[in-house]
Amino acid sequence: MINQLENAIYLENLSQIKRILQENPKEINREDEHGVAMAFLAAKSGNEQILRYIVEYSLANMNMVDRDHRNILHYATMSGSLKCVKYLVEKVGMSPVSGDFNLVTPYDIAHDNKFMDIEAYYEEVTGAPITQMYRNPIRTGFYPDPSIVRVGDDYYMVNSSFIYFPCIPVSHSKDLIHWEIIGHAITNTQWAMLDELEGGRGYWAPDISYYEGRFYITATYRLNDTGTVYRKQIVVSSDKPEGPYSKPAIIDEDGIDPSIFNDDDGRRYMLLNRGARIFELSKDATKKISEAQMLYYGSNKRAPEGPHLLKKDGYYYLFQAEGGTGPGHRITVARSRTLMGNYESCPYNPIMRQNDEGAAIQRCGHGKPVQTQNGDWYMVYLCGRMVGGGYSILGRETALDPIEWTQDGWPIVNGLKGPSVLQIKPGLQECVYDELLKDDFSEPYLDTQWMFPRAPELDGIELKAGFLKIHGSVADLSSMKARNVVLRRQQHFKFDAECKMKINPMAMGQNAGLTCYYDENTFLKFGLFMEAAVRDDDKAPSYVMKINVIQHIDEDNIACEGVAVDTKQRFIWLKIVTNYLKRSFYYSYDGENYTHFVTLDNVYYLCDEGLNKGKRFTGAMVGMYAYAGGEYTHVAEFDYFEYKSR
Amino acid sequence: MINQLENAIYLENLSQIKRILQENPKEINREDEHGVAMAFLAAKSGNEQILRYIVEYSLANMNMVDRDHRNILHYATMSGSLKCVKYLVEKVGMSPVSGDFNLVTPYDIAHDNKFMDIEAYYEEVTGAPITQMYRNPIRTGFYPDPSIVRVGDDYYMVNSSFIYFPCIPVSHSKDLIHWEIIGHAITNTQWAMLDELEGGRGYWAPDISYYEGRFYITATYRLNDTGTVYRKQIVVSSDKPEGPYSKPAIIDEDGIDPSIFNDDDGRRYMLLNRGARIFELSKDATKKISEAQMLYYGSNKRAPEGPHLLKKDGYYYLFQAEGGTGPGHRITVARSRTLMGNYESCPYNPIMRQNDEGAAIQRCGHGKPVQTQNGDWYMVYLCGRMVGGGYSILGRETALDPIEWTQDGWPIVNGLKGPSVLQIKPGLQECVYDELLKDDFSEPYLDTQWMFPRAPELDGIELKAGFLKIHGSVADLSSMKARNVVLRRQQHFKFDAECKMKINPMAMGQNAGLTCYYDENTFLKFGLFMEAAVRDDDKAPSYVMKINVIQHIDEDNIACEGVAVDTKQRFIWLKIVTNYLKRSFYYSYDGENYTHFVTLDNVYYLCDEGLNKGKRFTGAMVGMYAYAGGEYTHVAEFDYFEYKSR
Repeated sequence: MINQLENAIYLENLSQIKRILQENPKEINREDEHGVAMAFLAAKSGNEQILRYIVEYSLANMNMVDRDHRNILHYATMSGSLKCVKYLVEKVGMSPVSGDFNLVTPYDIAHDNKFMDIEAYYEEVTGAPITQMYRNPIRTGFYPDPSIVRVGDDYYMVNSSFIYFPCIPVSHSKDLIHWEIIGHAITNTQWAMLDELEGGRGYWAPDISYYEGRFYITATYRLNDTGTVYRKQIVVSSDKPEGPYSKPAIIDEDGIDPSIFNDDDGRRYMLLNRGARIFELSKDATKKISEAQMLYYGSNKRAPEGPHLLKKDGYYYLFQAEGGTGPGHRITVARSRTLMGNYESCPYNPIMRQNDEGAAIQRCGHGKPVQTQNGDWYMVYLCGRMVGGGYSILGRETALDPIEWTQDGWPIVNGLKGPSVLQIKPGLQECVYDELLKDDFSEPYLDTQWMFPRAPELDGIELKAGFLKIHGSVADLSSMKARNVVLRRQQHFKFDAECKMKINPMAMGQNAGLTCYYDENTFLKFGLFMEAAVRDDDKAPSYVMKINVIQHIDEDNIACEGVAVDTKQRFIWLKIVTNYLKRSFYYSYDGENYTHFVTLDNVYYLCDEGLNKGKRFTGAMVGMYAYAGGEYTHVAEFDYFEYKSR
Repeated sequence: MINQLENAIYLENLSQIKRILQENPKEINREDEHGVAMAFLAAKSGNEQILRYIVEYSLANMNMVDRDHRNILHYATMSGSLKCVKYLVEKVGMSPVSGDFNLVTPYDIAHDNKFMDIEAYYEEVTGAPITQMYRNPIRTGFYPDPSIVRVGDDYYMVNSSFIYFPCIPVSHSKDLIHWEIIGHAITNTQWAMLDELEGGRGYWAPDISYYEGRFYITATYRLNDTGTVYRKQIVVSSDKPEGPYSKPAIIDEDGIDPSIFNDDDGRRYMLLNRGARIFELSKDATKKISEAQMLYYGSNKRAPEGPHLLKKDGYYYLFQAEGGTGPGHRITVARSRTLMGNYESCPYNPIMRQNDEGAAIQRCGHGKPVQTQNGDWYMVYLCGRMVGGGYSILGRETALDPIEWTQDGWPIVNGLKGPSVLQIKPGLQECVYDELLKDDFSEPYLDTQWMFPRAPELDGIELKAGFLKIHGSVADLSSMKARNVVLRRQQHFKFDAECKMKINPMAMGQNAGLTCYYDENTFLKFGLFMEAAVRDDDKAPSYVMKINVIQHIDEDNIACEGVAVDTKQRFIWLKIVTNYLKRSFYYSYDGENYTHFVTLDNVYYLCDEGLNKGKRFTGAMVGMYAYAGGEYTHVAEFDYFEYKSR
């Protein structure tokens, strides 16, 4: 049903619009049948007079957004009216790079609709054509707690890996936008020490630095809560960024988020929380040689962590993450003329924070600055995008924004506007890496995308004749003893994961297939399950292999009604179609004709906020597993695994 | 019951504290029987080693506060340990001027307890002895929407008066801290045009400016919502700040919060919301001579209002209030090299905002800058203090904070730290005004503290032989037609209001006495009521004069059980003892021996948030009234009225 005001806007009848709004001012905030407020319809009309009237005389606020977090400039851009767009940008102060919930900006709308005049205007306003811009997060999916170092023209990043093996991915980039994992800080299963750790423990918040020709990586080794010592720091080093790295040296100091600071005088220090505390390290950074002292607790004073020091222009700049890694997260800075302080808090703190509760990119914090070879400054930091009312299904991701230095010598990130959605590229030589999206397992080594919850068993994984062979785990995925689970990051809200698996014989209780995995407390399995057949007489027990989905949430296993497998077939194709928190499951015997098995509407439990138990700081994973159902043997064989974003 | 940790802190046994916290880290956040967290007890112990351990190794966050909003520095200061205090200030970044819910700061605690070394240290840190500091709000109670102008060494301020008469108080100060009402913009009852207006309408958000020897005051005249025009602007002027001012010129442009900007070239403009719009004024500022145009909508984009322009160093600086006048209130600034823009938003916006939701001073916004004769800059702005879980019983008050100009030429208020509790005085010649707290009505004119909801009747109020005579209103306080209600601002959370009234004869239904008043929808009356006596036979009706309290909330009248008045007495003393939202009522026949009548635990309805009806932007008032109970006559006579803060 079209209301009076909607009709008047449609007819572009300003005098009628005025009359209606003078009598019923609140009509402007009424929504049409698609949930679009009248003010947005007015902007979409492209009629500048109507738009000005709505902005200047109606009750509409210019920070209003629709259900997709589109604002009035999105709608005005859709109209194609350059006049309306200019008015909103110049007089109302709307931004062409404000993102909706899918990170679509007015600039994108102009570009996609070929509104050349508006696109040219936005290029003038933003300072770059849209092709020279990048989009945050630069690394989607489970890439939290980024730390960065530049050596020459090369950039290296490390991220937290928690209980995943190999530990602490080291990534490389030339342009700060495109990254490739080139190695890991710990690749030796013995050194990883993950076997006994609950999900969410392990290697937290690493830092990478460079000193006299060597790369140093430090991280917190987070044990379970049992016992009195549950946090230590490790340091590894290598002369090659990809490794191999040295055996972890353990530094027995409580705290999290260590980083190494090398002062001008050659002395080396470790910083870590709470607050930012500091102690001196031995020359090789493997030993603590002074007691920890408080440098500065932080500006927000809640959960100060992720300290990094930068010396510049006679100041020690201390960057910290504060507010906790949820929506209150932020980056602050303080400075001192001397290393040991006192530190002065930046008046512009927080220098990075998402202030818009409804925006797509949330949880911004934990950053480290880096200067390019051209002298520009950038901050890498973590962020999280929440869907379905507060679920960070992709975990904490990595974002990038420029740092400006104010005239009074303080670094501020993205002009204090919070995380950018579209941002001008750093102007470095572009590097593009081919991501291995379809892995046919033809290489002798597993691709760097793959990882395991805790180190796999010796020979637990084989690559042979174009197949990935997974030796069935004695323990199920719900146990910390589950092994050989081959996972990759979920990096998109919409993606398909597909594999081709041999239909191998199984014993009772065994199963294998795909898994959507968070940790041992929450995951789902989609594959072949050997179950006891229903007996209608006294015959000996018989078994049947079924296709099924089992969700594991905390202590519960929730199974669907299985479908018997056609065991005459040699292969089965399994496919999971993902749409935000929805998962649809399909199978096929030829890789072409798929049968829908089931759809789960809400797999909220596959993310940080999905369960209140233990430490949940990672992100949703997807991959392959095999469960031997106890002390039996079972080998699952996968011909390929494909991950396709949509 | 003292717990283990409390005991260990009491005994200053650090190794036991460590042991307890390693086993049960959350114990640190446990509260003792007085609701004081263990971390605070640790600080209060004055033991630096224990304090450092708690800060650096425990789960305690340094932004924690107790029920009175005291922080760990308040507690450390109580210990008298300079070492603990220095550690918290220098390494943790705690502020000696952070206020608790009663605006008590660590600096006050040091001063009051005569901890001379800590007080000297705080003087060094803050830059001033406590005697050279002032406390916000500088004007307590109903002083919202301040606007300010300096002429020579004199400062003048106007505030909103809504439906109160006389309209728009003009106040004077020499030191920016102490203010005295010297006149009003409208004192002519005919010009006030308040008779038909609902509570909360009337004169909104005035501005005072000075141009070629004359003072100009502009304000929004806010009508009721009936009809299509409900907002106009008025302008009055005078060559004397105290007035009398000219008859209001009406400018028929929609919007609120007008201010006058006089550009260098002699042209005059009016600014007003929504956004900041601008139009040109005639030379005498009484006529609009151009169409309104949008200058800049604002940075927060919700409810942009209170625009003020300042020209400085080649920039037009546009100050705005945004976010609505509740807890989201803030001040932002934008600037342009040309008057008509485009305006650029300050990266440090909001330049004033309370970010601490639990702090005493909230709702900060709507400010205007002023430069002192010494070249320093200050911002006057409104704020509100909420008690009892969100009730601004004192209305919106006036606060003052210094403006600094950043090196890149932006004005920021109080170093972006939000409203200050204690702040260094502006260094101007101190002026102290005697406030008339006990008015014995011996002067021929009413003191400037007194005001009326809507203009009183001709001869409705008489001052005669040391008495204030109030001619009973034909309409009750619950009607917009109530007249001759004599009120003053409630300016303190704790105060006593007391009056001495003649026990005059009354007719049935009449009453008179004290009132705690918000508007015609919510108030209470405490006084003498002539009621029908209970009859136990068929005698003619008889009447009895009773002491009673009647609360009026929206449509309801809630009466207590009255007490018969001793009509042999000539006078009655009425006293209201106020404690936040609690009111206790007393009466006396000799002014010395008081009888408790009743206590009301929560008069939440006497403030903005107390009812969801109409416009509620004023504050609680207290004063005297007389109700004639229809077309009868009744005169109440008051010998004195005393307001005493506690």
